Amino acid sequence: MHVTSEQRLDDGVRERAFTLGDIPGFLWTPASASACAPVPLILLGHPTLGLASIYPRLAARARHCAAQGFATATVELPGCGDRPRWPAMEQARAELRRTLQAGEPVGDDLVDALILPLVDKAVPEWQTALDTFLALPEVGGPVGYSGGVISIGIRLAAADPRIAAAGLFAGSYVPRATFEEARKVTIPLHVLLQWDDEGNDRQAALDLFDAFGSTEKTLEANMGGHTGVPQFAGEAAAQFFTRHLK
Amino acid sequence: MHVTSEQRLDDGVRERAFTLGDIPGFLWTPASASACAPVPLILLGHPTLGLASIYPRLAARARHCAAQGFATATVELPGCGDRPRWPAMEQARAELRRTLQAGEPVGDDLVDALILPLVDKAVPEWQTALDTFLALPEVGGPVGYSGGVISIGIRLAAADPRIAAAGLFAGSYVPRATFEEARKVTIPLHVLLQWDDEGNDRQAALDLFDAFGSTEKTLEANMGGHTGVPQFAGEAAAQFFTRHLK
Repeated sequence: MHVTSEQRLDDGVRERAFTLGDIPGFLWTPASASACAPVPLILLGHPTLGLASIYPRLAARARHCAAQGFATATVELPGCGDRPRWPAMEQARAELRRTLQAGEPVGDDLVDALILPLVDKAVPEWQTALDTFLALPEVGGPVGYSGGVISIGIRLAAADPRIAAAGLFAGSYVPRATFEEARKVTIPLHVLLQWDDEGNDRQAALDLFDAFGSTEKTLEANMGGHTGVPQFAGEAAAQFFTRHLK
Repeated sequence: MHVTSEQRLDDGVRERAFTLGDIPGFLWTPASASACAPVPLILLGHPTLGLASIYPRLAARARHCAAQGFATATVELPGCGDRPRWPAMEQARAELRRTLQAGEPVGDDLVDALILPLVDKAVPEWQTALDTFLALPEVGGPVGYSGGVISIGIRLAAADPRIAAAGLFAGSYVPRATFEEARKVTIPLHVLLQWDDEGNDRQAALDLFDAFGSTEKTLEANMGGHTGVPQFAGEAAAQFFTRHLK
């Protein structure tokens, strides 16, 4: 991990911008975190908009988590921000734009093309990043995963035993294969659903919630569209992580 | 209100058993409640099992609410506990037992016969009781309604402007008419659903949640059967009432 810049936010949170190989990312730790008092970590998932544009929202989540005693970290997704594109992804994104502009439904094959290569590339990167974060003396386990592309969270939760709890946002396209992977997830889950999310299939989100193998899973559905998650839903998610990571 | 017995619970909560006419009930107030510092009230709904059998659960909810600064109160439902039955209700209950023993589905007409007369009788009683509770100097508004037969909560929330927020449990039979009434409910709602509730139609519960006219409504679904509501769900409901009644 090569730290490219570091600052203290006004609430004492230490923010490090870094690169891991050619992947940029951020690490936030509460003022209290030290080798003598390591803090649990929450990986902050995010949509495919690029870290630069999503930074304000991520930093706000990070500061909220720090106030609860958590370190947080995130890395850029493959093919997003300044990271190189690949032809199949560009083609799938172009096809998505065309489909949405034409008002056509987004079919299963297009969802697969958009999401599955992203998951295949992203999950090993997040696992490598997790190795690095956990090697820092001020960061301890257990580890949570929160938000972002839900298929990435599901693959991570199913594949990496270090992930002890996950807060997922049922607000992105879900490939058919993700439903099968969801059955393999057995950790505690807190799943947010925006009831009137424009681009989201509500029934698919309910089916996905049903598919999870976890014996403790909570679905919290609130009114409003994709970006209208109410503040109190963030607090409920924070309480979920406090219950399971502390 | 005729107080038939009164005691202080060990956490200082004042419990009054009373009758209102021939209707028995309970009122719990926190130690701090006084004419100078009246506290908001939550009406505790309950299933049709009779207050005597449900008392331990109600008293536990009351003490939890008192710790958050709320008075709570409840009255016996019509045809339950020691209150007189009526022939049509006895007939509907016998038909329900027969239907469940035969493993047959509970049809719409039977649900109507079980629930609608109960709602018609109970709601005016709860409103009269509310007049009485709010006349006590140590009890103030705003008022919440929590739990119990969901059709009673919906009728009360739609009909009585003193009810400012409602926590509902989607775990009882829902007559067709209740869906129409749900559209008239506009107060903030916190709706609990047990995902694997044996006697409950999950899709009907989701449809009911969708029908509510409220712009702020949250559905919280947890794993487990009818009686398996996890403790953290109670805490989330308490936070909902704190947000809206304080």
